[in-house]
Amino acid sequence: MSDKKKKPQKLKARLPRGFGDRSPADIRATDEMVAKIKAVYERYGFDPVETPMFEYTDALGKFLPDSDRPNEGVFSLQDDDEQWMSLRYDLTAPLARHVAENFNDIQLPYRTYRAGWVFRNEKPGPGRFRQFMQFDADTVGAPGVQADAEMCMMMADVMEALGIKRGDYVIRVNNRKVLDGVLEAIGLGGDENAERRLTVLRAIDKLDKFGVEGVRQLLGAGRKDESGDFTKGAGLDEEQQQRLVDFIVAAQHGGTETFFANLEATTIASSSRGLEGLEELKDMSTLFYSAQYGGDRIRIDPSCVRGLEYYTGPVFEAELLAEIPNEKGEIVRFGSVGGGGRYDGLVSRFMGQPVPATGFSIGVSRLMTALKNLGKLGQDQVAAPVLVTVMDRDIEALGRYQRFTQELRNAGIRAEMFQGNPKNFGNQLKYADRRDCPIAIIQGGDEREQGVIQIKDLIEGKRASEGIEDNAAWREARVAQVTVPESELVAKVREMLAAQDEDRAKDRMGGA
Amino acid sequence: MSDKKKKPQKLKARLPRGFGDRSPADIRATDEMVAKIKAVYERYGFDPVETPMFEYTDALGKFLPDSDRPNEGVFSLQDDDEQWMSLRYDLTAPLARHVAENFNDIQLPYRTYRAGWVFRNEKPGPGRFRQFMQFDADTVGAPGVQADAEMCMMMADVMEALGIKRGDYVIRVNNRKVLDGVLEAIGLGGDENAERRLTVLRAIDKLDKFGVEGVRQLLGAGRKDESGDFTKGAGLDEEQQQRLVDFIVAAQHGGTETFFANLEATTIASSSRGLEGLEELKDMSTLFYSAQYGGDRIRIDPSCVRGLEYYTGPVFEAELLAEIPNEKGEIVRFGSVGGGGRYDGLVSRFMGQPVPATGFSIGVSRLMTALKNLGKLGQDQVAAPVLVTVMDRDIEALGRYQRFTQELRNAGIRAEMFQGNPKNFGNQLKYADRRDCPIAIIQGGDEREQGVIQIKDLIEGKRASEGIEDNAAWREARVAQVTVPESELVAKVREMLAAQDEDRAKDRMGGA
Repeated sequence: MSDKKKKPQKLKARLPRGFGDRSPADIRATDEMVAKIKAVYERYGFDPVETPMFEYTDALGKFLPDSDRPNEGVFSLQDDDEQWMSLRYDLTAPLARHVAENFNDIQLPYRTYRAGWVFRNEKPGPGRFRQFMQFDADTVGAPGVQADAEMCMMMADVMEALGIKRGDYVIRVNNRKVLDGVLEAIGLGGDENAERRLTVLRAIDKLDKFGVEGVRQLLGAGRKDESGDFTKGAGLDEEQQQRLVDFIVAAQHGGTETFFANLEATTIASSSRGLEGLEELKDMSTLFYSAQYGGDRIRIDPSCVRGLEYYTGPVFEAELLAEIPNEKGEIVRFGSVGGGGRYDGLVSRFMGQPVPATGFSIGVSRLMTALKNLGKLGQDQVAAPVLVTVMDRDIEALGRYQRFTQELRNAGIRAEMFQGNPKNFGNQLKYADRRDCPIAIIQGGDEREQGVIQIKDLIEGKRASEGIEDNAAWREARVAQVTVPESELVAKVREMLAAQDEDRAKDRMGGA
Repeated sequence: MSDKKKKPQKLKARLPRGFGDRSPADIRATDEMVAKIKAVYERYGFDPVETPMFEYTDALGKFLPDSDRPNEGVFSLQDDDEQWMSLRYDLTAPLARHVAENFNDIQLPYRTYRAGWVFRNEKPGPGRFRQFMQFDADTVGAPGVQADAEMCMMMADVMEALGIKRGDYVIRVNNRKVLDGVLEAIGLGGDENAERRLTVLRAIDKLDKFGVEGVRQLLGAGRKDESGDFTKGAGLDEEQQQRLVDFIVAAQHGGTETFFANLEATTIASSSRGLEGLEELKDMSTLFYSAQYGGDRIRIDPSCVRGLEYYTGPVFEAELLAEIPNEKGEIVRFGSVGGGGRYDGLVSRFMGQPVPATGFSIGVSRLMTALKNLGKLGQDQVAAPVLVTVMDRDIEALGRYQRFTQELRNAGIRAEMFQGNPKNFGNQLKYADRRDCPIAIIQGGDEREQGVIQIKDLIEGKRASEGIEDNAAWREARVAQVTVPESELVAKVREMLAAQDEDRAKDRMGGA
């Protein structure tokens, strides 16, 4: 288009990068999924509690994986009183603030759940949004690993409640103290290495994304991604890299018992913190075994790390093993759909006392994509409304059509009167067709005089028109249309909808 | 506290002004209410569509009532690419952007609904938050007032679906064109008075809050509120004020027909825009009458204005007439709980063509407060979980308790194992009491050896202890506790829960 022809300036309709609208199908699928997850959380004795989108920036803390980026990965702005507020980047830090603020009114252990939007001011990509939904459960005031074990079992139960078969998912469990012990053993102990330890953990966390070689690069000099962006590595030497790689793949060879024994005898023998973590892992194994959650549901896995800084003990992750299309349409192992761990320091930042806590988070949007692709969600379509068409356009006629519509609605039937420009009647039937309306209601002047209504079965109509070969046969059949007295409108529509339901049920059964 | 005694610096747990956490009761009540509203919208043939929290600032437009305040009433921040984004202040402007952006894929008329959080960077107050939830329905691509009439009927149906009796609410309807006609008649026509007309509309909008005298002040020099804040008025002279006041109270005297006739004959006789609006009001009256929505549900009311700038024709508002406690606990007429109107210009800002639209918004948090205070919500309490106590604390015992808990859950019974510090057994029973747990499960060493479990009926226990006068009688009764083999745990718990349900049902019926 030439510049000359440009209009004065028309506002462009577009969204900021990394934000998206949600379609009816996605909303209905998400609602269905969230309801199923909620039922599991409730059965485990958790109650809902929610916090707002904003927190004071200092109360959120700086625990994000990408905190080295300019704006630290969060959306922040200054309030009228000059204080900085940020949009929450997860649901855990706000919960910690909530507990500390209301500590005297809260009965510990405090068992709560919440679904909500969180925000990350990060580089968006396919399937990677700057606003997404998490669904968390947490127990605050729970010092023992039995609380962590419960979280793992609950995650497994959630997966199965969503229809994911045993074997198509696994809950992977590890312990940050064990990881610390290993890092100590390779010379990364002490406060002076805190930053570097975090870089190493985040490198290991990328195993399922980048594979062993990718992790090795991130442990060493660094890694360049497909877009050319370079992530600086932890700068470990070859031997350090090798010992870490050996550790994270260890449990895949020889099973959990051997892994525990080897770890205790060699790698972390000299680290009291590492040994403490190992004891916790063993206790959790015992609890899983007692409650009959076998290795097909929950598995000890030293490569499970979790990227967030605030975890202090057990960490866990729910992974989908099924090979399904991802956001780009590639068939892949879907990977992590949620995770969590123990965060004993997060509440006590605000308090003069320790407040141990554990919890996890499910990535709702991501899991929903997976479930849709697995065919586990959105099977139950909501039927489109009955359309009351507008033949005559005077106000008295409109009032009549509106009354028909209300009569149907009052009888619990989904219905609408055509609200677009009614001039072209064909457009109304086109609208009904595109929306998949099951039935159209028609009353012109003639029908009005006789006090009758035409009811058109649009589904039977489509069917019929497919089977009928010429116009004469079409006119003769007319099966798809009946004329009834106004007083019989509701009863007849109900009858036709029921017949359509029956046809659909037959179709699903593979019948005629 | 003296400065000397201050600790190094403990982070303070607090929320920014105007934001609040949500309690389990509020969340459950809101969910219940939203589900009922959604059912009505669905029955009317609307489908869900949602937009994200952020929009580009220019796409939102400047339609907020308080746009004269420094930051224009919205939360805004600059993206990495220097573009300004804002958190949405309502759900209508983002819908307009969504429709324009996807215009080629959208089938008009486009009938959608959405519930979501919106943000206002305003002075918070009691019951006035900077984040609150709205629940909207809109028809885009609907040129006729029959679409506006449908919105009013749907609002009325929503009120009744929520259990609000006819007579305890009313939908008030007016038309911006009529208002414009009246303003023209008192010399406020023309582009040069656009800003002033808006100030007048917002003054009239405050009638239910400030009464006739308050409105008069806002139409004149201005009004000082209780906190001493001064709102500048529209600066009208006495005669102008009087004619406006006469107009807004007119329909209360003599009924709608007389009001229409007077208006047409005198006030707006010379304004073609005013007369057009009056025709639309009359048509809507006809439609309400045809569909049998009488004046006890929907009423023409010239004082209904709506504060937002983008309305172009019919406007409507749902008002609760019942006198109930407000957020401050004062018994008052609750007032507006939602409203909307026609916004023909909002989508077309982005387009080269007109796209007429109408819709409304329900203030979810506000309406929820009203319904709770009316006793219409939150009647169905979710039962607290069965508590499996922790008597022995070794890992093997913990595994056993965990297994009992899972058995109960697998049977669909809400249950949890005590996850706090188990050292003091009394604390566990105290926890059960405070949470209103119906049943406690206990197994010590002795029971373990015999393979049995104690089940304590905590509700019957409370009842019994109230009726029993001395310790000896208490020990003798022991009705509230049974001992069963481990294998009978689930069956016995189920039986006891059923008995408790029955007792509660009897209590509700007024029986023993």
